[in-house]
Amino acid sequence: MTAETATPLLDQVTTPQDLRKLQPAQMRQLADELRTEMIAAVGQTGGHLGSGLGVVELTAAIHYVFDTPRDRLIFDVGHQAYPHKILTGRRDRIRTLRQGGGLSGFTKRSESEYDPFGAAHSSTSISAALGFATANRMMGVPGKAIAVIGDGAMSAGMAYEAMNNAQDAGNRLVVILNDNDMSIAPPVGALSSYLARLVSSGKFLGLRDLARKFARKLPRPLHNAARRTDEFARGLAMGGTLFEELGFYYVGPIDGHDMDALIPVLENVRDAAEGPCLVHVVTQKGKGYEPAERSADKYHGVQKFDVVTGEQKKSAAGPPSYTNIFADALIAEADRDSRVCAITAAMPSGTGLDRFAARFADRSFDVGIAEQHAVTFAAGLAAQGMRPFCAIYSTFLQRAYDQVVHDVAIQNLPVRFAIDRAGLVGADGATHAGSFDVTYLASLPNFVVMAAADEVELVNMIHTAAMHDAGPIAFRYPRGNGIGLDLSGPPELLEIGKGRIVREGSKVAILSLGTRLAEARKAADELEAKGLSTTIADMRFAKPLDEDLIRQMIANHEVVVTIEEASIGGLGAHVLTMASDEGLLDNGLKIRTMRLPDAFLDHDSPDKQYDTAGLNAPQIVDTVLRALRHNSAGVEEARA
Amino acid sequence: MTAETATPLLDQVTTPQDLRKLQPAQMRQLADELRTEMIAAVGQTGGHLGSGLGVVELTAAIHYVFDTPRDRLIFDVGHQAYPHKILTGRRDRIRTLRQGGGLSGFTKRSESEYDPFGAAHSSTSISAALGFATANRMMGVPGKAIAVIGDGAMSAGMAYEAMNNAQDAGNRLVVILNDNDMSIAPPVGALSSYLARLVSSGKFLGLRDLARKFARKLPRPLHNAARRTDEFARGLAMGGTLFEELGFYYVGPIDGHDMDALIPVLENVRDAAEGPCLVHVVTQKGKGYEPAERSADKYHGVQKFDVVTGEQKKSAAGPPSYTNIFADALIAEADRDSRVCAITAAMPSGTGLDRFAARFADRSFDVGIAEQHAVTFAAGLAAQGMRPFCAIYSTFLQRAYDQVVHDVAIQNLPVRFAIDRAGLVGADGATHAGSFDVTYLASLPNFVVMAAADEVELVNMIHTAAMHDAGPIAFRYPRGNGIGLDLSGPPELLEIGKGRIVREGSKVAILSLGTRLAEARKAADELEAKGLSTTIADMRFAKPLDEDLIRQMIANHEVVVTIEEASIGGLGAHVLTMASDEGLLDNGLKIRTMRLPDAFLDHDSPDKQYDTAGLNAPQIVDTVLRALRHNSAGVEEARA
Repeated sequence: MTAETATPLLDQVTTPQDLRKLQPAQMRQLADELRTEMIAAVGQTGGHLGSGLGVVELTAAIHYVFDTPRDRLIFDVGHQAYPHKILTGRRDRIRTLRQGGGLSGFTKRSESEYDPFGAAHSSTSISAALGFATANRMMGVPGKAIAVIGDGAMSAGMAYEAMNNAQDAGNRLVVILNDNDMSIAPPVGALSSYLARLVSSGKFLGLRDLARKFARKLPRPLHNAARRTDEFARGLAMGGTLFEELGFYYVGPIDGHDMDALIPVLENVRDAAEGPCLVHVVTQKGKGYEPAERSADKYHGVQKFDVVTGEQKKSAAGPPSYTNIFADALIAEADRDSRVCAITAAMPSGTGLDRFAARFADRSFDVGIAEQHAVTFAAGLAAQGMRPFCAIYSTFLQRAYDQVVHDVAIQNLPVRFAIDRAGLVGADGATHAGSFDVTYLASLPNFVVMAAADEVELVNMIHTAAMHDAGPIAFRYPRGNGIGLDLSGPPELLEIGKGRIVREGSKVAILSLGTRLAEARKAADELEAKGLSTTIADMRFAKPLDEDLIRQMIANHEVVVTIEEASIGGLGAHVLTMASDEGLLDNGLKIRTMRLPDAFLDHDSPDKQYDTAGLNAPQIVDTVLRALRHNSAGVEEARA
Repeated sequence: MTAETATPLLDQVTTPQDLRKLQPAQMRQLADELRTEMIAAVGQTGGHLGSGLGVVELTAAIHYVFDTPRDRLIFDVGHQAYPHKILTGRRDRIRTLRQGGGLSGFTKRSESEYDPFGAAHSSTSISAALGFATANRMMGVPGKAIAVIGDGAMSAGMAYEAMNNAQDAGNRLVVILNDNDMSIAPPVGALSSYLARLVSSGKFLGLRDLARKFARKLPRPLHNAARRTDEFARGLAMGGTLFEELGFYYVGPIDGHDMDALIPVLENVRDAAEGPCLVHVVTQKGKGYEPAERSADKYHGVQKFDVVTGEQKKSAAGPPSYTNIFADALIAEADRDSRVCAITAAMPSGTGLDRFAARFADRSFDVGIAEQHAVTFAAGLAAQGMRPFCAIYSTFLQRAYDQVVHDVAIQNLPVRFAIDRAGLVGADGATHAGSFDVTYLASLPNFVVMAAADEVELVNMIHTAAMHDAGPIAFRYPRGNGIGLDLSGPPELLEIGKGRIVREGSKVAILSLGTRLAEARKAADELEAKGLSTTIADMRFAKPLDEDLIRQMIANHEVVVTIEEASIGGLGAHVLTMASDEGLLDNGLKIRTMRLPDAFLDHDSPDKQYDTAGLNAPQIVDTVLRALRHNSAGVEEARA
């Protein structure tokens, strides 16, 4: 129970079993209390607010009607699952959301049996639900699977692939399309227009329509002309033929905040559907909290805020974010060169391309949650002579890996990849970490792979990428703010495959890729204080390697340490591979590679995450000292 | 001109410019000659036959009507492009198809200006065409883009993502849906049923319908109810609303072998369409060559064959293929365990799962060209207690990389990945090579990554995977045949992360992953003959590494060489990383990693490709000898 407001009904509900003891008439009040509790909690923690507010009634109704956890409820993305967490035994920890050691901001299998499938990336829920439903069918056990998926997530190809295969699951599959006409940004694409037409052309499904609808359940498949006529007539009256053409029984649209509609509709779907069913529920993001309803982004993601006023706590002012620096620099490139254009996959504000689009509307493309298309579309643009920048978070670029390989790398097309959120990302946790891009890109022939050490370097890399027509080129940069460098100078055109020495020493060499450079500097100061003269090279390029620089570092230092915000297989592996190829290890070299550990790291502050990962200054110092203490037998000597 | 049959019209046509000089009435004969020439050529080379035969008329008609190469023609997959190659200046080389140094079996940018975008993987064409069309729009230059895409390819998510974004291109985009009701295998899924309903319910579009259709071109978007009524009425008469709902102007169905329909329809689409247009063309795979028409797979991929009889040259009998061995072993596992089930993404025969499906229809899933869905569906199955085997070629698993990371690895779900076509694949060339999977999987926490050294090992790994419920596990194996080992014994349960020593020596250690083991054995014999006693370890696991074995190899040998059929970042990088972590390189080690080169290798025989890649026995020997000749300064000594 919160201090702010009494929640007498919610206080009786620890699990959905408790919820099901309520009368239908009590569910309105339950939903109101649930909303109040959620607002209070997120006010304290920050996090995703708008999406959860939109599904308060829907979440309560699903748990009320379906037999969770036996029936598997899968929230797509999962950032709308805070009300679900409150109702499924996690209310006591809801004020730890996204904090180190606290609840995840997404659904997570290890947290609860009510989270049968974790999420965070979009559009996976129907595929997963099909898996659960089909497994139950094969094992001959009861249990449905319910996927709750937003209209934005429906723009991704994998949602379509799953719908195309939905017949297999029969009536064990229920897809609830949560149509709030908005994912993070306003939606794009033909599907979105189609849904808007469905909603605007029809009235909400009432109870009488529902009775009629279920009274004449259509056998499937619909082969003969009479059935098709009926189908199209129904399509005309209520919409939905696109989903019906894909084999679903369509029910909707339904007002997703009306408990008196939701509960009977879901009961009917539960009991009466003969095949996979799609329930089209219309909700309002931010519903029931006026500051969110008024806001343009519906409080998609918020800082801690004052519940009464809705005012969010400002973060301490600091240097501009890498994202904003990227946006400014790309705008400058586009000013100079009409071939520069930009593509985002439903992340205009997250990538800074909203600002680019405001300036260059006709050279800016938001393709929706469609990373695969984004990359191959960019490849087509590049093949026809444009200079496309594909701005996608590291973790989401994984969605388009084959397109990166097959359409870009093999054809050696000059697509520029702006890879935001590289490395660890803090509160969003393991699912959003940008851990693997250096490894999965630097293994590709033709690719140039850069990582920015600071914001000046980022601007240089954007310029270098713009000018690089020889093939694909990628640059990665982290979540968060720069270090406050002066950006007023013109960008520098970097020589491809050349690093820079940022500090000269003689005993220890640190080869850094990316923003660990700041930690490397701290470590070097400490090492210097211990009498260990330290060189730092900012490698800039994971591929092609600056082989001359590496040879020089190896030749002139006793210890060589590589460091990067990336998994095994990145800079460290490439340096070791090149050095062993050339026989540079034949006669002994104290070489160590520092990288992300072989583990998925939970949400925490980024600095604590890097501490856990062992990539901060103290650990660099420790790595060097331990390397030096190794005696000739490869055994650590006792500390002097 | 071929020896077999006179081709007087075709002999006048070197490029589409020549083609356009013909009269429409001559195009029927031209198509017949083109078909004859193609059959004769593929009879000599082998390759993809059925798909090309299906689009002979369509290909000729497109080049006749559109202004290629200014208008960009993009064949999805590209294996149906042999007639296109004959018409676009490559007839003189058509009998070199898929041979080393010859024409690629797919479209390829470096081959011709008429191949604006290479292909081989499916479902990329609409995205790429959108890129070309949009670039032209931005640059203000003329030029349309035409994507020719099969109905099977339409089942992939990225085709849907592209359609969802097609409005951007306006009437510069033409999508030609080549509906032959069959990709490689018979089609699956709701879209396929939908297309079948469209075709079966309507008659082919005649010239009179066409005139009517284009006379009342609909403005878009269709907002008001009157327009929607019209749209649905039209849908009822001619089908197509699914595409219209996605913003396309739908024309069809059209008989794709009727030149008298194709040419005027395409002319109308070229001149009159106001937005992106989808032309639904119905063709017959294998059309016009009776042995192909009669065959179940329509001669999708053939060996060299006798043109008169259609009889294909038998490959020399040899040991069973890895694919068949996989199928048999998986059937045996499924016999023992009702939880074992299998998923393929439109490759039932290529993966051997057709045989599994014949035995276990209810535990076998062909999801269509939908790798993303396949993996997350498998994750759902695993989460509910099944033991799913996801059988996907190495190169196609790239399509599902994010699903592998996000839905499988992060959640540590025991999905079994059967990765066929690992390593170089011969005639299919760079686009189909399985080069990157070891790197992109072994960098993932929780993953077990195996590679089979021979067919007995493959069977052991299948059994090991079936029994491994602790998390995700992958095993890779090559295209082609085993080495003839006896498979009658029961499978062995391998210890996770343990390799095996297959030959004991004292000076040189070869750490092999995968089927290069046979070359390692040859190399060891040669080295032994030179007095260099050689140990061979079959590492079996790229992850987790057998660290004890590696320590032992390093401690007891002068030279250590790793070898794998995989790119940088795989076994070699992991061994180097572990060894440097532990300080095992501090005092010197002649260690070399042999891997695929930093280049995309063109089609050739697999053995020649491995020679180019430097991964055959002579190159192993050479690597060892060169390592031994390095003197203490890291400089090669003169040969003794």
